[in-house]
Amino acid sequence: MGSIITLTTDFGTADGYQAVLEGVIAGINPDARVVPISHDIRPGDIAGGWYLLKSHYRYFPPRTIHLAVVDPGVGSRRRIIAVITERHTFVAPDNGLLSFVPENEILAIHTITNREYALSRISPVFHGRDIMAPAAAFLSRGVDPACLGRKIARIASLKVAKPQFHRDRIVGRILWIDRFGNIVSNLPAEILFEEAVIQIAGRPVGPVRRTFADVRPGKMLAYIGSGGYLEIAVRNGSAWDRFSGLDRRTIEIEVARPGRRG
Amino acid sequence: MGSIITLTTDFGTADGYQAVLEGVIAGINPDARVVPISHDIRPGDIAGGWYLLKSHYRYFPPRTIHLAVVDPGVGSRRRIIAVITERHTFVAPDNGLLSFVPENEILAIHTITNREYALSRISPVFHGRDIMAPAAAFLSRGVDPACLGRKIARIASLKVAKPQFHRDRIVGRILWIDRFGNIVSNLPAEILFEEAVIQIAGRPVGPVRRTFADVRPGKMLAYIGSGGYLEIAVRNGSAWDRFSGLDRRTIEIEVARPGRRG
Amino acid sequence: MGSIITLTTDFGTADGYQAVLEGVIAGINPDARVVPISHDIRPGDIAGGWYLLKSHYRYFPPRTIHLAVVDPGVGSRRRIIAVITERHTFVAPDNGLLSFVPENEILAIHTITNREYALSRISPVFHGRDIMAPAAAFLSRGVDPACLGRKIARIASLKVAKPQFHRDRIVGRILWIDRFGNIVSNLPAEILFEEAVIQIAGRPVGPVRRTFADVRPGKMLAYIGSGGYLEIAVRNGSAWDRFSGLDRRTIEIEVARPGRRG
Repeated sequence: MGSIITLTTDFGTADGYQAVLEGVIAGINPDARVVPISHDIRPGDIAGGWYLLKSHYRYFPPRTIHLAVVDPGVGSRRRIIAVITERHTFVAPDNGLLSFVPENEILAIHTITNREYALSRISPVFHGRDIMAPAAAFLSRGVDPACLGRKIARIASLKVAKPQFHRDRIVGRILWIDRFGNIVSNLPAEILFEEAVIQIAGRPVGPVRRTFADVRPGKMLAYIGSGGYLEIAVRNGSAWDRFSGLDRRTIEIEVARPGRRG
Repeated sequence: MGSIITLTTDFGTADGYQAVLEGVIAGINPDARVVPISHDIRPGDIAGGWYLLKSHYRYFPPRTIHLAVVDPGVGSRRRIIAVITERHTFVAPDNGLLSFVPENEILAIHTITNREYALSRISPVFHGRDIMAPAAAFLSRGVDPACLGRKIARIASLKVAKPQFHRDRIVGRILWIDRFGNIVSNLPAEILFEEAVIQIAGRPVGPVRRTFADVRPGKMLAYIGSGGYLEIAVRNGSAWDRFSGLDRRTIEIEVARPGRRG
Repeated sequence: MGSIITLTTDFGTADGYQAVLEGVIAGINPDARVVPISHDIRPGDIAGGWYLLKSHYRYFPPRTIHLAVVDPGVGSRRRIIAVITERHTFVAPDNGLLSFVPENEILAIHTITNREYALSRISPVFHGRDIMAPAAAFLSRGVDPACLGRKIARIASLKVAKPQFHRDRIVGRILWIDRFGNIVSNLPAEILFEEAVIQIAGRPVGPVRRTFADVRPGKMLAYIGSGGYLEIAVRNGSAWDRFSGLDRRTIEIEVARPGRRG
């Protein structure tokens, strides 16, 4: 009974919306422990929620339930789903938010439609509180997912920018910018060349370093971030401050063989 | 012993003030679970705290204790009180913050004056930490409220704007603006006309819709919010951004019979 | 097993970094309770973390473990340490963050180097997640600190501005500015004169008052804050707003004998 339920939402923490999720959960399973991953996904930013949950969910213990509510289509015909894997369970609107879950790890997917496992009054603008939080709480109590709704074959996918591969370079995009101004690319460590040279928005960053202290204060560096992606940072400063006039959606991060570029 | 204590304050979360409430509570009742509703009430905004707690408290399980600290009069002669209802208990300064609790649900009101249930040193500028958090923690341990102080007959009321009723229209005000830029009015769903037409700040919004997806992206809509009040939103956008030059305290939200307006 | 682990970091709460600390801790000690003190230390602001933890740690119950991660030198040769006192344990990078712990209360200091008590993969940019959170979790399970690494004699100190004492006045600096715009000085209550007269940035504040309600709304006042330091506030307003053009690091707060100044 004492499992963890994580929360990843675009609710913020000022309006109390995140708190009633915990209130509802505690009413159904007092032993569930609620841990916010982030409530500061930008409003409606499904790709942002996708990235954060993808980065962090593996650090939670077995039997954790991840409840993710970035739900611009609330009240429309989009489905609400539970995705079951060996280790974790996920509850979210079926809008692509969960498309990072590896297909070969999925044991079952269920729609959540059974109103016996929802609050008695359902607001058309707050399914997180009235449907998803109760479902997560009942699942944490051991309710069979098959009770929540019928089994379905697949979940919605999400169009997230993928790296472009060229003969001698790879071009990526920005996935996330964190509080420190560190810029997270969509380039996973595995695809980088030996001794690759990095550019961002046409500006040379140099080779990939191990950590911030490998450059002098104020200098930009590329490194493999804690989530396994190539990141750009400034030691004791903000990398994003140097590009903040630009549109984050169009900035290119380029990885080239040494000698060709940079 | 394992009851919930919610926190609603204007402390923010950067300065650690909210954390010591939990530290103090844990020292007195290690089994109490602390759930923040919001620490982002605007400094001193009693009406804001009133609205948030009013909106959310019912979603917490029976025996929950709600500790609310928006206390611009800290250290002055304002009282600190515990309000007991069948389902929940509330602890707050007696400045109107708790005036939403329905009178017919109140079993007893006690002032909190007994220093045996406070920290041994009381700062005149932090009664939340030194008096109210201990009181809430002792109440969660089952201490009789009568031990905290004498019984009183009534609590302070709060001047919150009330809707104005006219022959063929109702005029309301803004209670809250949330992270999405959704504007919450003080007009409860029950008083709306059939097929009412809505205006805000003189701008037509149209009839009341069910949910965001009922209008096209970028369009403004009126709907019944998850707290039961009429709200104004923009689908995939922020309604408040369209009015943010105006003074939120004077904006009028008008509900009219169809054909007369809008 | 059910001890508290507090978190004081510069991670913010938007990026999920703070959440994986809790996920990692829960995987090692499911009974540990995690309480954030603040995640909003300014990036790399070791003195800010020092001040906040110093102010609040005593309000947590015995056996609490305080995990503090403000770690601009992550991945470099700075040490990670556990500081054991009778009442509390502290885990942090050895960069001065813990230099407030009174020397006479320290029972032992250990470096944290044993990788058996860390995650199996260690990112050079996130020792909070991969080394410090596991260490705190193992300590909360009762693991002997001597297992984590060798004993050392002293911890790094921090250059925090100290008050300057003159014949008839004391000059202090700003330690912290809180959400209310209250300005916290580095002048502890104990060193103030009887009936001292206060100035800040050359502007007279008058004598020390008890609480906000002792002056009229909009008026500035000096008082002893809840952390035991002299603070400057404006009743129902923000003191810092009146000085925000100035550099917080150079503003002087002066305490003079009455009649000489102010």
